[in-house]
Amino acid sequence: MKIAIVGLGLIGGSLALDLRRLGHTLLGTSRRPETCEQAVALGVVDHASPDLLDMAEADVIVLCPPIEAIAPIAERLIPHLTSSTILTDVGSVKQPIVERISPQWPNFVGGHPMAGTAEQGLEAAQRDLFVGRPYVLTPTESTPQESVETMMEVVRSLQSTIHICDPAEHDRAVAWISHLPVMVSAALIAACTGEVDANVRELAQALASSGFKDTSRVGGGNPELGLMMAQHNTAALLAALTQYRTQLDRCIANIQNSNWVELEAWLVQTQQERPKYIKP
Amino acid sequence: MKIAIVGLGLIGGSLALDLRRLGHTLLGTSRRPETCEQAVALGVVDHASPDLLDMAEADVIVLCPPIEAIAPIAERLIPHLTSSTILTDVGSVKQPIVERISPQWPNFVGGHPMAGTAEQGLEAAQRDLFVGRPYVLTPTESTPQESVETMMEVVRSLQSTIHICDPAEHDRAVAWISHLPVMVSAALIAACTGEVDANVRELAQALASSGFKDTSRVGGGNPELGLMMAQHNTAALLAALTQYRTQLDRCIANIQNSNWVELEAWLVQTQQERPKYIKP
Repeated sequence: MKIAIVGLGLIGGSLALDLRRLGHTLLGTSRRPETCEQAVALGVVDHASPDLLDMAEADVIVLCPPIEAIAPIAERLIPHLTSSTILTDVGSVKQPIVERISPQWPNFVGGHPMAGTAEQGLEAAQRDLFVGRPYVLTPTESTPQESVETMMEVVRSLQSTIHICDPAEHDRAVAWISHLPVMVSAALIAACTGEVDANVRELAQALASSGFKDTSRVGGGNPELGLMMAQHNTAALLAALTQYRTQLDRCIANIQNSNWVELEAWLVQTQQERPKYIKP
Repeated sequence: MKIAIVGLGLIGGSLALDLRRLGHTLLGTSRRPETCEQAVALGVVDHASPDLLDMAEADVIVLCPPIEAIAPIAERLIPHLTSSTILTDVGSVKQPIVERISPQWPNFVGGHPMAGTAEQGLEAAQRDLFVGRPYVLTPTESTPQESVETMMEVVRSLQSTIHICDPAEHDRAVAWISHLPVMVSAALIAACTGEVDANVRELAQALASSGFKDTSRVGGGNPELGLMMAQHNTAALLAALTQYRTQLDRCIANIQNSNWVELEAWLVQTQQERPKYIKP
């Protein structure tokens, strides 16, 4: 197939590397001409062009720009596509994107490859980034089955684990396990900085070890990512945060009232539940 | 010196291994005669006895039982000690212990070696467990300087990093970086289990990866440890939880009101603050 990658960053570049090795012809575009040149020089794509419309000839177009640019780019491309062209994306929130693009392009199959590294940009692109990782596809009832199957083949060829679900289900699931942890973890760091006694604050900083390090990791990450989650997955994140606050209040009340039996039962439950989320 | 270890578990056993290698004579006691025999057989101590009062002849007695047993054991020992005997402990909360023991035994120097492994018990004891780790000592104004200096020498010989502070300062610092993270992390797991849609819950479990794994780690740990923190460091933990809830409410309000500028500033601050707590 002829596959076009719009946005040659970590995800787009890594997809291109794998798909080209699998025998597809890869087109790529970036607003920056240097990135286009670099992508060809590195063997990431066969052809690159800063002109988005040069991608219109592909069989499958994968939209990998920052999340807020996905729908606008789709809308610029749509008038130039033939009806069989499959549009897909890699955005980490699905419902708003699917709701906006699907009515304009029935052959849109929302996607979310759940892989990454701490690095960003084309230089960080790597082979086999998606092997063994979840790759969510979110077709709607009106998405042609043939397009879904083509996308499933592509995902399978990357050796990812396919999850097919409703866009809203995807957004709620990632709110729980990806977006809520960022806010919970950021609030931990923010709370510690509120310690007014400088001696205690410095001692806390000196004594912090793996427990604090792990719990604060995602809250101390890229602020743009956290902001993106809140702006684009607002409803699901707020629902998760509300449920979280209820649990926090319950914990606080049990400690305030010395309800040690209930606090212990709560901690026993969290110990039992966690392994369901953790792969061996 | 003659050093006695009361409670031959991971911490007591590891202390004994290092101190014996450093040339001290080690006595050890455990309520279980088998543990006493094992400690001698493993070379952890020179002599062991299930009779607590056999420890009274030591120059330094290190109390390493579960936290609620520290003060009662000190009180059983005190009538049998000579005035120069130094009592110390390894409890992870200091103010209630120091307040109770110090008036009865001026030569008490509260201690908290901040090291551990996921394992427990004498079998898990290991050499060099405390090398490069913080070891907090919490003398009061009335603690004899000579006893503090003896304890500092012991801690230095373990190659730990000494922190001397007020017991209340210690408890507030560990509330921030050790006890608060456990409750914050447990509430995350508890909140996720509240998802009522089975499809979403299963999808969340399937998609969870390193972000969820790290943020939920300490909340999915030993319930007894979390309970101990809440029971013994109640005031400092509640103060930290209250401050935490304020930050969480601020985060929720910013998302509800689409205050993206403020939310981003908050996330930028947490990104900037975290490195102060993380050792390179």
